[in-house]
Amino acid sequence: MPVDCTYRVTIPHRPGNLAKVAGAIAEGDGVIGDVVTVASGTSSVRDITVEVREWGQAEHISKLIGAVDGVRVVWFQDRALLRHEGGKLSVDPTRPVRTVQEMRDIYTPGVSRVCLAIAERPELAARYTMIGRSVAICTNGTRVLGLGDIGPVASMPVMEGKAIFYRQFAGISAMPILIDTKDSDEFVETVIRIAPTFGGIHLEDISAPDCFDIEARLIDALDKPVMHDDVHGTAVVTLAAALVACQQVGLDLRAATVGQIGLGAAGFGIAAMCADAGARVLASDPSPAACERARHDHPIEIVDMATIMREADVVIATTGKPGLITPDMIRPGQVIMALSNPDPEIEPDRAIAAGAAFAADGRSVNNVLGYPGIFRGALLAGVSEINLEMKLAAAQAIAALTSEAELVPDALDPAVHERVADAVRDAAIRTGIAHVERAPVGL
Amino acid sequence: MPVDCTYRVTIPHRPGNLAKVAGAIAEGDGVIGDVVTVASGTSSVRDITVEVREWGQAEHISKLIGAVDGVRVVWFQDRALLRHEGGKLSVDPTRPVRTVQEMRDIYTPGVSRVCLAIAERPELAARYTMIGRSVAICTNGTRVLGLGDIGPVASMPVMEGKAIFYRQFAGISAMPILIDTKDSDEFVETVIRIAPTFGGIHLEDISAPDCFDIEARLIDALDKPVMHDDVHGTAVVTLAAALVACQQVGLDLRAATVGQIGLGAAGFGIAAMCADAGARVLASDPSPAACERARHDHPIEIVDMATIMREADVVIATTGKPGLITPDMIRPGQVIMALSNPDPEIEPDRAIAAGAAFAADGRSVNNVLGYPGIFRGALLAGVSEINLEMKLAAAQAIAALTSEAELVPDALDPAVHERVADAVRDAAIRTGIAHVERAPVGL
Repeated sequence: MPVDCTYRVTIPHRPGNLAKVAGAIAEGDGVIGDVVTVASGTSSVRDITVEVREWGQAEHISKLIGAVDGVRVVWFQDRALLRHEGGKLSVDPTRPVRTVQEMRDIYTPGVSRVCLAIAERPELAARYTMIGRSVAICTNGTRVLGLGDIGPVASMPVMEGKAIFYRQFAGISAMPILIDTKDSDEFVETVIRIAPTFGGIHLEDISAPDCFDIEARLIDALDKPVMHDDVHGTAVVTLAAALVACQQVGLDLRAATVGQIGLGAAGFGIAAMCADAGARVLASDPSPAACERARHDHPIEIVDMATIMREADVVIATTGKPGLITPDMIRPGQVIMALSNPDPEIEPDRAIAAGAAFAADGRSVNNVLGYPGIFRGALLAGVSEINLEMKLAAAQAIAALTSEAELVPDALDPAVHERVADAVRDAAIRTGIAHVERAPVGL
Repeated sequence: MPVDCTYRVTIPHRPGNLAKVAGAIAEGDGVIGDVVTVASGTSSVRDITVEVREWGQAEHISKLIGAVDGVRVVWFQDRALLRHEGGKLSVDPTRPVRTVQEMRDIYTPGVSRVCLAIAERPELAARYTMIGRSVAICTNGTRVLGLGDIGPVASMPVMEGKAIFYRQFAGISAMPILIDTKDSDEFVETVIRIAPTFGGIHLEDISAPDCFDIEARLIDALDKPVMHDDVHGTAVVTLAAALVACQQVGLDLRAATVGQIGLGAAGFGIAAMCADAGARVLASDPSPAACERARHDHPIEIVDMATIMREADVVIATTGKPGLITPDMIRPGQVIMALSNPDPEIEPDRAIAAGAAFAADGRSVNNVLGYPGIFRGALLAGVSEINLEMKLAAAQAIAALTSEAELVPDALDPAVHERVADAVRDAAIRTGIAHVERAPVGL
């Protein structure tokens, strides 16, 4: 498994020494990432991050660096593990409590008056509590990234990561909720019972086909936004990337033929959304049930993969099968989006060499571009559902924010998320489902 | 209902003017609290907080202040409502994400390695996630403060308040979980399913007798600390106060007779704990079931209230019935703790006038002194339960930290909570239930 390994090294602070260390890393076949100067004197202390294929290579590179004259490796470690020490989230007071009067305000006796006010007028909860600006990230850990069913506890780092982006990019307090059941009925029941705590429900990393049923039942049962990110968040960001790709090669997506290979959670969402956006959609999957589900509610034609490769202007693959698409299958001029992580159905440079007009893999299509703004827009609009127009608006906003020669905008740019949120809120208003007067204070 | 009302007033900045405003407030029968200077120039702007009995009085005082020459009331408002705007909690990253490399560390691809590490060795969750340093505050809102069954959503401000103290005093991330059911089976089932998310379960504001059953079943089912704060947190702090009171009047609690009037959640916890601590305990309650429950597992004698008032050296009342204890019932030399909020069974000054050696009401016995340190100690000890010795150790630590002439220590002093946590952890080690090697990183 590939690792980003950080080496803390002391290096004599003279010209040429860092070059020698870089040379040693190159000799070990490592790709250098960030180089950070931690301290400098006659020797400088630096944290050098290196991408390696597996841990044995990291150990080998450590020896090569240590063999450079005057250089010492203090330690080396998987960066991700280092960064996760102590967890990534905390629940904090919006303001600390310092005085006796402040205790009286936030706790007894003052808090009683706030409770009573809400008991009398429940809509005040959006004003006086965190409920309206919070989202539960609910999972049972049955399909975590490409790792499969690793269970709820081992999935926690993913949920914490998603929550960080909610807070940093959308001002939303997102709390992971690990649900220890593989039974759909129990999962739905549990989320319904704890739902009063939150303004919205984000479903995450639940395996197909259960995830479809769970999402549909929760949307039905709850009077607040519910979205399975692996289905709809992925679809929004993929549609945005497809819009950009089409624009770059001079295609109009609505007039194009889109071929979706793989109808798991992500593939289903993408096919459905492209169809709903007006494109002709062909799709394939080895599972007859998956095909039936896709065809059932959406204008999607089920075909075989060969037909897709022959007929589609835009091919999107989400199969989890590295190398599934071979260069001979590519039709010159096609847009190829081979999205499986970490290894795509075909490497972009091979697809281009085979004649594709445009090719991308899953690294550039990051859900982080979608869900924070989508939920912020939904909460600001006070909606009880996230409709198709809101999702299309999010995709169009993301596409419109993309710089030339990029496929998607920079997820670290706060303005992107703000614009997505605005587009989603405006779409809710336009389609008549907004109740902006219900929008929470403080979001 | 009593209100702390804040008046923002502009006052000519010359000697005597604040005195005139204070006089006007006194004329309106208000008690002045904090006075904060917001800005000063030829006129100063001040926020003056006044305790009033009800809102009509607050409006009347506003007119009296406004009638003072040169003084203007800009606005006046219930302080607690002001302080709750936008809610009191947020879920935050422990560190923000600023660079592409940091995104790679906390999200894909780095997060996969952390998930895999936990999947292989589940005990690493305490190191690499927030689980080990977090607590769920679970309620169904069926008995909130003295307000009764106001439901889960209206109880949220109380839960957020408790969570603030967890973070500020014990470094614990506490998340309110509002559970929308009055059925004990459903409540227990729901908590069990979401329990993997948290290091401990704090039960709050659940009505008796359901709360006893719910707590017992969760303690049984879960391999992590579970405590109903209204039962055991209250008992710990009350026992601490009783220890201090006994010391001040020269009594040894273990050799004394304690009379508990009222066997609801708090009363039951107090009676059980005093009995377990070695005192002779008499108790009374109108409910035969409540009496039977108390007698069942603990050496508690069920008697009538008259017997308690006649025989007990220390009388503790938690009935919710203001004025239940009349001065003629007091036996000279008794310790009287009339704890019902906001109005006690007897006012402390009346009890003293009637011959009590010591008297206190519920305002001084604040749960905030207990639960943050208790759970911190439990998490640091890596225990799967909170045993009697841990609770007794907490009570003794709180009593030992109390200054002369006080009943309990200052809850705003961080050292208090640290010492309680240490005492609880040490008790867990002493009684052989600690697994400190499981203690979370970052707590």
